[in-house]
Amino acid sequence: MNSREDALALDRDDPLAALRGRFLLPDDTIYLDGNSLGARPAAAAARAQAVIADEWGRDLIRSWNTAGWFALPRRLGDRLAPLIGAASGEVTITDTISVNLFKLLSAMLREQAKRAPERRVIVSERSNFPTDLYIAQGLIAQLDRGYTLRLVDDPAELEAAIDAQTAVAMITHVNYRTGYLHDMPAVTRHAQQAGALMLWDLAHSAGAVPVDLNGAGADGAVGCTYKYLNGGPGSPAFVWVPQRHLAQFEQPLSGWWGHRAPFAMEPGFAPDAGIARFQCGTQPIVSMAMVECGLDIFHETDMQTIRRKSLALSDAFIALVERRCAGLDLTLVTPREHARRGSQVSFEHPHGYEVMRALIARGVIGDYREPRILRFGFTPLYTRYADVWDAVEVLREILETRAWQAPEFAARTAVT
Amino acid sequence: MNSREDALALDRDDPLAALRGRFLLPDDTIYLDGNSLGARPAAAAARAQAVIADEWGRDLIRSWNTAGWFALPRRLGDRLAPLIGAASGEVTITDTISVNLFKLLSAMLREQAKRAPERRVIVSERSNFPTDLYIAQGLIAQLDRGYTLRLVDDPAELEAAIDAQTAVAMITHVNYRTGYLHDMPAVTRHAQQAGALMLWDLAHSAGAVPVDLNGAGADGAVGCTYKYLNGGPGSPAFVWVPQRHLAQFEQPLSGWWGHRAPFAMEPGFAPDAGIARFQCGTQPIVSMAMVECGLDIFHETDMQTIRRKSLALSDAFIALVERRCAGLDLTLVTPREHARRGSQVSFEHPHGYEVMRALIARGVIGDYREPRILRFGFTPLYTRYADVWDAVEVLREILETRAWQAPEFAARTAVT
Repeated sequence: MNSREDALALDRDDPLAALRGRFLLPDDTIYLDGNSLGARPAAAAARAQAVIADEWGRDLIRSWNTAGWFALPRRLGDRLAPLIGAASGEVTITDTISVNLFKLLSAMLREQAKRAPERRVIVSERSNFPTDLYIAQGLIAQLDRGYTLRLVDDPAELEAAIDAQTAVAMITHVNYRTGYLHDMPAVTRHAQQAGALMLWDLAHSAGAVPVDLNGAGADGAVGCTYKYLNGGPGSPAFVWVPQRHLAQFEQPLSGWWGHRAPFAMEPGFAPDAGIARFQCGTQPIVSMAMVECGLDIFHETDMQTIRRKSLALSDAFIALVERRCAGLDLTLVTPREHARRGSQVSFEHPHGYEVMRALIARGVIGDYREPRILRFGFTPLYTRYADVWDAVEVLREILETRAWQAPEFAARTAVT
Repeated sequence: MNSREDALALDRDDPLAALRGRFLLPDDTIYLDGNSLGARPAAAAARAQAVIADEWGRDLIRSWNTAGWFALPRRLGDRLAPLIGAASGEVTITDTISVNLFKLLSAMLREQAKRAPERRVIVSERSNFPTDLYIAQGLIAQLDRGYTLRLVDDPAELEAAIDAQTAVAMITHVNYRTGYLHDMPAVTRHAQQAGALMLWDLAHSAGAVPVDLNGAGADGAVGCTYKYLNGGPGSPAFVWVPQRHLAQFEQPLSGWWGHRAPFAMEPGFAPDAGIARFQCGTQPIVSMAMVECGLDIFHETDMQTIRRKSLALSDAFIALVERRCAGLDLTLVTPREHARRGSQVSFEHPHGYEVMRALIARGVIGDYREPRILRFGFTPLYTRYADVWDAVEVLREILETRAWQAPEFAARTAVT
């Protein structure tokens, strides 16, 4: 890609080009942050209106049955399942990643306490998204039984860290800062051969890279619907448990939505036989219903086509930045190797925070992550090759002119 | 109220009459189920559209800051606080009742383990809403330290059941089946004098009856926004912790939204100093934003005015049913005494399920609760005296003509 014309030609030949029309994006924005909050499907507003006006407003309480609200988490879970290599009946969309991680990690520790009570270590990465580590820390403190969290500093150390003390390996498939993509089948195989249970966080991989949970034989997973799946701000998360574990895994957040007969109103808890046992309480239906609008778009293509374009976009971005912004203090953080790269590209810059604020002020929306990381997400359903070209040109100008030194870009405010 | 004309006269004099216009209700329905799912505020659809089109669609990721998404749980918590006698900074709107109950019960047991480790009993009512009991059971099983759940069968037994073994008394202020209203100050005082911590579930009292948590000196509370507060289907729940406990209470669902500096992305958890420590993960923003539309309406009146009309409506309903449906097998379950009655009225009927289905088919929406309970909620913001009159007339006809015996009302389906 040597010119904007090259980019436009690639867009004309893009098999996913038509799907951009399924989204509503502002004209003045190049949006490279779908890894944090996915763009708005065009269908979302009408879906929300139907839920609010017809299902809530007109049918009121009856909609729990007639509009299928109560079954929505499992029905949407089934629609999501093929994107992550899960079977029907193994996924439910519910609560948040943090809450689902607590459930799944609790269930896995309890399972290991039966099988191999000497295993008291949870292995993860220090660079994992913090909430994953916080949840493990909170559970360890609550249980107060000598569990520890062992954190590795580099993916290369992971295999050695998983040993005969390990109860659970809890890894995020694609690292949120670096975009490093773990080899799911290999890590899973290694963990299980060491006697550990393998828990994957798919926050940055569901809808971003092909995932085959059952093919890898993983033991459980959680993930997000508001990033690459375009479910809307804070849309509920998902949890996956393979069929072979469903009858054994017991989780402590045993609310009524996980009961085998929630409307019998029995005073004693008895878990549902299936994935509903990982549900807890009443779900936010309007936010949940819009998840389907994002999933619908994925069903018009396939993850292999998405992956091809994702790599082409990120390859083009890396090559262009290194050529057009050479000598401007940017250092690539994301792996060049396709097999180790998710759908984002991160560059380090000594003034990463200020540079990102300057980019956003110019309409190029990526995000900043501590420390010094400029993060750019490539979401093949709506990102064009021309966007990649234009974004790099804006970045080059900002760096060459040192526009990021303007005082308005210095003040720190919360950035998600 | 001896005639429909009397009812219409009461509606004309009703100080809350104008607030019915703040809701959109179907013309052909008498809605007496706001205790299960509140009606739709007229403002909700536009609020959702603004979030979807402007905040999500146009401003995208920036809205976490510019639209105040990240602060929304605490901002709306502050707006809810005056309705339940809470102070600013003590309430956050987040997750579900079940999840919040797990957090709060965990925090209270941990606190008691420091103060009085011999206290290993959680006291509640067998007739509590099942999810409350399920959550206590799940937590007890997870901790596996000899905690037990002691259930009383009658409110009169409650005080005797709270003793020197009791760690926490966990009571729902208004019982979901019977409508029994506990004496919050008296029960709290008794529990605390016995050395227990007092946890209230306000699912059926927030927005229904005046609540003064700080006046009663309670130790913690959870509650619902989608019933009397009209937040929308499955809108997030709330959790209250008084200022005096905030620094001590530690809860295990320690996700990043509970961290004192969530965007510093530190690998170690450190709780926020305030109520945000009871937050966990990213919240469903569209469902959350609509909660404000319900709260706005409460700020146009006060809980004393609401309570006066609530009791007038339920008094009228009880009197009419007992007069117009005499000899038709209905038995009042809800206390007659005002001080012990919430904002619902329950009658038992040997064929309660079929009778409720027949009522719903005629446009009178109450709900059914096992076993044999016909439940009618009275929500003073939008329920008219004429609705009470008309509902009783429909009930009388169904019972007199035995219309409930029609085969279409017999098949059991899930009823929420």
